Amino acid sequence: MNDSNSQATGDLRSSYRTVRQRSERLCAPLETEDYCVQPIPEVSPIKWHLAHTTWFFEAFVLQEFVPNYRVYNSSFNYLFNSYYDTIGNYFPRPDRGNLTRPLVKEVYEYREHVDQAMQSLLQSAIGPEIRDRVILGLNHEQQHQELMVTDFKYILGKNPLRPSYIGNFSKLESQAVDSLTYSTFDEGMVKVGMEMNGSGFCFDNETPEHQVYLAPYLLSNRLITNGEFEEFVQDGGYNDPRLWLSDGWAEKNKRGWLLPEYWSGEHAERTEYSLSGDRELDASQPVTHISLYEADAFARWAGARLATEFEWEHATRSRGAEELSRVPSDNDLHPRPALHSNRLQQLIGECWEWTSSSYSPYPGYTPLKGALGEYNGKFMANQFVLRGGSVATPPGHIRTTYRNFFYAHDRWQFTGIRLARDVG
Amino acid sequence: MNDSNSQATGDLRSSYRTVRQRSERLCAPLETEDYCVQPIPEVSPIKWHLAHTTWFFEAFVLQEFVPNYRVYNSSFNYLFNSYYDTIGNYFPRPDRGNLTRPLVKEVYEYREHVDQAMQSLLQSAIGPEIRDRVILGLNHEQQHQELMVTDFKYILGKNPLRPSYIGNFSKLESQAVDSLTYSTFDEGMVKVGMEMNGSGFCFDNETPEHQVYLAPYLLSNRLITNGEFEEFVQDGGYNDPRLWLSDGWAEKNKRGWLLPEYWSGEHAERTEYSLSGDRELDASQPVTHISLYEADAFARWAGARLATEFEWEHATRSRGAEELSRVPSDNDLHPRPALHSNRLQQLIGECWEWTSSSYSPYPGYTPLKGALGEYNGKFMANQFVLRGGSVATPPGHIRTTYRNFFYAHDRWQFTGIRLARDVG
Amino acid sequence: MNDSNSQATGDLRSSYRTVRQRSERLCAPLETEDYCVQPIPEVSPIKWHLAHTTWFFEAFVLQEFVPNYRVYNSSFNYLFNSYYDTIGNYFPRPDRGNLTRPLVKEVYEYREHVDQAMQSLLQSAIGPEIRDRVILGLNHEQQHQELMVTDFKYILGKNPLRPSYIGNFSKLESQAVDSLTYSTFDEGMVKVGMEMNGSGFCFDNETPEHQVYLAPYLLSNRLITNGEFEEFVQDGGYNDPRLWLSDGWAEKNKRGWLLPEYWSGEHAERTEYSLSGDRELDASQPVTHISLYEADAFARWAGARLATEFEWEHATRSRGAEELSRVPSDNDLHPRPALHSNRLQQLIGECWEWTSSSYSPYPGYTPLKGALGEYNGKFMANQFVLRGGSVATPPGHIRTTYRNFFYAHDRWQFTGIRLARDVG
Amino acid sequence: MNDSNSQATGDLRSSYRTVRQRSERLCAPLETEDYCVQPIPEVSPIKWHLAHTTWFFEAFVLQEFVPNYRVYNSSFNYLFNSYYDTIGNYFPRPDRGNLTRPLVKEVYEYREHVDQAMQSLLQSAIGPEIRDRVILGLNHEQQHQELMVTDFKYILGKNPLRPSYIGNFSKLESQAVDSLTYSTFDEGMVKVGMEMNGSGFCFDNETPEHQVYLAPYLLSNRLITNGEFEEFVQDGGYNDPRLWLSDGWAEKNKRGWLLPEYWSGEHAERTEYSLSGDRELDASQPVTHISLYEADAFARWAGARLATEFEWEHATRSRGAEELSRVPSDNDLHPRPALHSNRLQQLIGECWEWTSSSYSPYPGYTPLKGALGEYNGKFMANQFVLRGGSVATPPGHIRTTYRNFFYAHDRWQFTGIRLARDVG
Repeated sequence: MNDSNSQATGDLRSSYRTVRQRSERLCAPLETEDYCVQPIPEVSPIKWHLAHTTWFFEAFVLQEFVPNYRVYNSSFNYLFNSYYDTIGNYFPRPDRGNLTRPLVKEVYEYREHVDQAMQSLLQSAIGPEIRDRVILGLNHEQQHQELMVTDFKYILGKNPLRPSYIGNFSKLESQAVDSLTYSTFDEGMVKVGMEMNGSGFCFDNETPEHQVYLAPYLLSNRLITNGEFEEFVQDGGYNDPRLWLSDGWAEKNKRGWLLPEYWSGEHAERTEYSLSGDRELDASQPVTHISLYEADAFARWAGARLATEFEWEHATRSRGAEELSRVPSDNDLHPRPALHSNRLQQLIGECWEWTSSSYSPYPGYTPLKGALGEYNGKFMANQFVLRGGSVATPPGHIRTTYRNFFYAHDRWQFTGIRLARDVG
Repeated sequence: MNDSNSQATGDLRSSYRTVRQRSERLCAPLETEDYCVQPIPEVSPIKWHLAHTTWFFEAFVLQEFVPNYRVYNSSFNYLFNSYYDTIGNYFPRPDRGNLTRPLVKEVYEYREHVDQAMQSLLQSAIGPEIRDRVILGLNHEQQHQELMVTDFKYILGKNPLRPSYIGNFSKLESQAVDSLTYSTFDEGMVKVGMEMNGSGFCFDNETPEHQVYLAPYLLSNRLITNGEFEEFVQDGGYNDPRLWLSDGWAEKNKRGWLLPEYWSGEHAERTEYSLSGDRELDASQPVTHISLYEADAFARWAGARLATEFEWEHATRSRGAEELSRVPSDNDLHPRPALHSNRLQQLIGECWEWTSSSYSPYPGYTPLKGALGEYNGKFMANQFVLRGGSVATPPGHIRTTYRNFFYAHDRWQFTGIRLARDVG
Repeated sequence: MNDSNSQATGDLRSSYRTVRQRSERLCAPLETEDYCVQPIPEVSPIKWHLAHTTWFFEAFVLQEFVPNYRVYNSSFNYLFNSYYDTIGNYFPRPDRGNLTRPLVKEVYEYREHVDQAMQSLLQSAIGPEIRDRVILGLNHEQQHQELMVTDFKYILGKNPLRPSYIGNFSKLESQAVDSLTYSTFDEGMVKVGMEMNGSGFCFDNETPEHQVYLAPYLLSNRLITNGEFEEFVQDGGYNDPRLWLSDGWAEKNKRGWLLPEYWSGEHAERTEYSLSGDRELDASQPVTHISLYEADAFARWAGARLATEFEWEHATRSRGAEELSRVPSDNDLHPRPALHSNRLQQLIGECWEWTSSSYSPYPGYTPLKGALGEYNGKFMANQFVLRGGSVATPPGHIRTTYRNFFYAHDRWQFTGIRLARDVG
Repeated sequence: MNDSNSQATGDLRSSYRTVRQRSERLCAPLETEDYCVQPIPEVSPIKWHLAHTTWFFEAFVLQEFVPNYRVYNSSFNYLFNSYYDTIGNYFPRPDRGNLTRPLVKEVYEYREHVDQAMQSLLQSAIGPEIRDRVILGLNHEQQHQELMVTDFKYILGKNPLRPSYIGNFSKLESQAVDSLTYSTFDEGMVKVGMEMNGSGFCFDNETPEHQVYLAPYLLSNRLITNGEFEEFVQDGGYNDPRLWLSDGWAEKNKRGWLLPEYWSGEHAERTEYSLSGDRELDASQPVTHISLYEADAFARWAGARLATEFEWEHATRSRGAEELSRVPSDNDLHPRPALHSNRLQQLIGECWEWTSSSYSPYPGYTPLKGALGEYNGKFMANQFVLRGGSVATPPGHIRTTYRNFFYAHDRWQFTGIRLARDVG
């Protein structure tokens, strides 16, 4: 959620309503059953997301700032705390999918209760501390909105019945994509990251703003397409260990990967599951739902490499992000083909782009105080940074400084590939 | 389901309706969410049971015997085939809990469709082959009724909210149980097992009737109580490897068992989860939800042993099963204390009693022909026989020759302990 | 080791020397390196066997019966106790292969020390209790002699260099084997098992002698050959789930079994590793190194079944074991083809024959007192009985009542297949 | 191995002899048994190291550059190829410890054979390509010398008998260490890395030399001691999840870590296994054998952080590495206490220092051509960089630009902790 210091409390109340309603609107096409399961540990039940984001406001705003606030249900503090050790024990993540209770309707009642308490609070005069917490809570909920999309996609897409989430997506006409070109960036000192309490919200992991030196580099102007990735498949890319990181080769073999997640069928009749169901693979759309390992192997096969997170950020900042993206909408939950243009595009809101950068603290990074210090900091090991947001990222939530992070083997997010090269 | 050759088709139609309705009545207190999850691989989602038992009639009766029968949904043959390799591939068992579709209401529609087709068939003149299949299908559904009870008990009982299945069980007054006594049985040749196509239904694993020689033995007149098992716990039974089978000791340590399933709290305030929720442990009720390993360790601690399946069957037959049980009812899904009597009791319908007998074929055993030969035969390794039925066993389903079987580590069934001893 | 009450102490001293020397003679062809590794948990390092059998005499004879006996090395009580919880903690079995110390030569020094103490003891007047312990210790060492053979076979046979244990086995001329015939046995009460303290040694798991009733049965006159098993392979036996026990099918897939252990190469050029190295598969030799699951699937494929342990014992006893076997020798560590005869043969000393009997206590079974009660009793779950001994069984160690036991998936022993059938 | 372009072939021949002999000298105190086992997958058998380093010369020098060179044993190409997919299949790493053959003496014969061929080659006129390969092979062997030390330490140190590698280490007098102070470094552009084919050898992962911008920082002048780490332990550091990275907390719990590797005993009588056996923990020695997770948790507990690899490299370069280390020797295989000095020390040759930097390619990094491109590049994911070398690092092998890398959970290397802080 974008926000600024000058935003009035009335705006905050409105933002609160808007964001919270969007979570529920996203779930409208789901059936009760779809809210309840956890096919893999990283995919949480949808009702858990709805309850956890609510608990976040209860634990970090209402309980801290509203005198005499009565906790809605004390066991929810255990069930819907995700990972905040400072707050106390929490229910084991891999077992979230075993919880048939609270019921979906009870979770909605919980949301209603907390929303009312929040609206009361937001009608009073609130100081900057509460204000910052609410804004953080809304951004937190937006992150879970993206996870809800990827999670119900996994739940529906792995079901042999291949149900669609909603059937009426407008199908774009498939059309050839221009061949890949690159933009050049000069060497130099560049600014990356953002100041907290600057103009607008950011997470602590984007701070502080600082300088880095970049050698000159090339960045491909668009994302890699399904058609290009199919060439990699046809060329035996999944069978040639020389293209793969050592850990990636092991992981691929262990998991039996032969294609991107959601692809199926033989070459001649390849299909891809999207949220409107299985459909013929569209060669012009960006390839998505691939691991870092596949992205990296593709890049090596193509004689290129992945960009660092700073190369990506510098390129995006310097060209102006507004030029670089089309506005995604809730009605279009699949990445779209590139435009016919040699300009840098598809940077924002199509696919999260795997970078070669490990997720590490910026120089001078200081986590938030208290339990919220666990929000980002403790995950800064063994994961990779992704940039740019995806079709599942809520409008207004993404920034050029935004750092998302996943394990190299994760495939259930809308992840994609952009190539980079050294100059010279 | 008990049945006899002389039963008219009208009776079969009525039995069909009764049994099928009972499955749905058992589910009446459940919420949609409760139908959908699989906390451990051996606990299947309730809606899966409802669909699988329906598929059984569709695959083994309607498709085989009704000309031009149109399969309701061809993918259900994949989703709801449990393990019949002869019929084809089936969905992996550990992933049943990931299937949010078909919806619960769609499963009920499937049941309705098959019930109508079955009722049509049963209104026509049917031969003995169809008749036998239908009776098998009803007994199959009754087995799943028991599994549904133990499965939703697990689903609800492992939820930190400890929901009750239904709240109005009549609580029996707790009362002291008489101290343990034994009945004596002489050596001799005895008949065990049953003839298929004899007077009434049996599964193929109960056949053929045959003779075995039994040495003299003693059998305890009632089941072991919670109070007696608590003494074993207090005496360090879970910490003394000399009491345990080697595999049992390893399994106990791996799984961290310190108490029976569903027990919790410290000694002074021990509680047990029942289908009406957590409640104070009743010392007079039979201990239940224990593995064979715990039953065996308890017996060794008590200076006794478990009975063989034939010792149990002979004792039960010779005393007359009708004297040995009280009629259980759907309203009382927890084993009840013994009566004040030194006669052999609690043999039928309280707890499945672990025997020391491995699940093996009887001499001359022949599985059913075709796919149904997979019903029982292929499980005859590494499991133990249990006898007597439990409070979750449907009325009329249990027999003195009935052989149930589970792995030695399984605890989620209503399992209990009866002791035996050698004479002399 | 066969023994009788009338055997003089001098004989015992001589037996002690003979048995102990045989262990060391078996190891003579090994290199130091071959003594030290544990490729799978069930294969112990050879030096561990040499030390453990020595510890057995130290712990159960010298420490118990020799006043002021000084323990050789107190840490050996921890390192070389296999599984006797009554005695105390023991080193974890799967880590035995990590122990580079004590050295092989130190283990031999330990053996020498204990042998001297034992010889001193055996030169004195000893009572029956000591005598029984010594005899048990010698039989225990003989069991480990067999394990040493199968363990170093595994260690050498899984090495890509395929070293031979000793190169000069006389290769028998391959010759066709007569087609399979069966002997018939009538129904009746038969005696099985043995009395402890009767005429000669037995393990507690063979006691007490007792009666069982057998229905009439047929037993194949010889073991199944490599050639016959190859037919099963060629007929797709490993790919047809209907032939397999459910657990067996899962295990086969998990372990990737496509052939018996030690077989390799394509059909036309199949080889088998023997202790003299890889060699062309001999169609006339008995198939060996197969799991119970493969034996059972083969039997089902052949329209037969495995025998129960009592069917085997009765047949072997009634025909006279001495007729049934050829004397194996240390020079010939591979099962040999059947003779041209329709009489029951190959029952003793070729391959351990998987029976369909689970390993359970006999009626009235009482384990030995004290720690030695753990010798056999605590393993009576989840394993299957094998009968008859193998080429690796020391001369004089096997009996018609002898019960060996392994898990259904174990393949590294010299296991084989004999078929049985019902009559009528 | 340090080297320069001007070094004559005679020097190379001499270097070859020196390095190769050092490997064998390191093994002199070992017994044959100690060469053969693999207690954890990352610890390879010592004889495997001896053979693999030899194979490296055979595969990358002799086979490529010596016409008509006859491979010593073709199966060694399979057994002793570590991970070079370009060359072909290789024996599975976790099974190296099962290989009792080739024997230790056969491995030494293999070494002798290859050494003779190499000496012949080095007596001829060789070009720069061969020369570079030989130098790479020697540096490769030196890396394995370090692994041999840490591997036999693990093999001996995990044995309950706690054998010493060699008994006559001179024990330093324990003495208090000065309290921790920091050196300050200004912000600025700094050079890191090295040019290949520059003055002396480096690995490809150190290239190319390039610039990075550093913010100002503080670096502690010495390593963290056992005494300081014991304070962390006493303060409950292993029980407070707020101090740990999320992955670290999970790993610690999974592995049951309560202390550094090789520590044992209660607080009052803490001991540490060193290569001269168990001994009282010396509070003044650097703590070693800890994971990145423990290093990171300690730093957080101490209100500091780990340095980045570039902060470390810049500090080390700017102060002059020669001042920063004492020459380690083969006789002293344990890190030594700091000197009484506030100057930056212990940077080289005491403990590998965990940095907060993930192991990634430098900008413009190009792997070596051909199979040797797999040497470093394919491991650039999920590992962390360590700097400075340890007491086990061969003399002359370490550099300020040297990048070692291990997984965050690895503890069997001589790893230690140096703290850093932000300025202001």
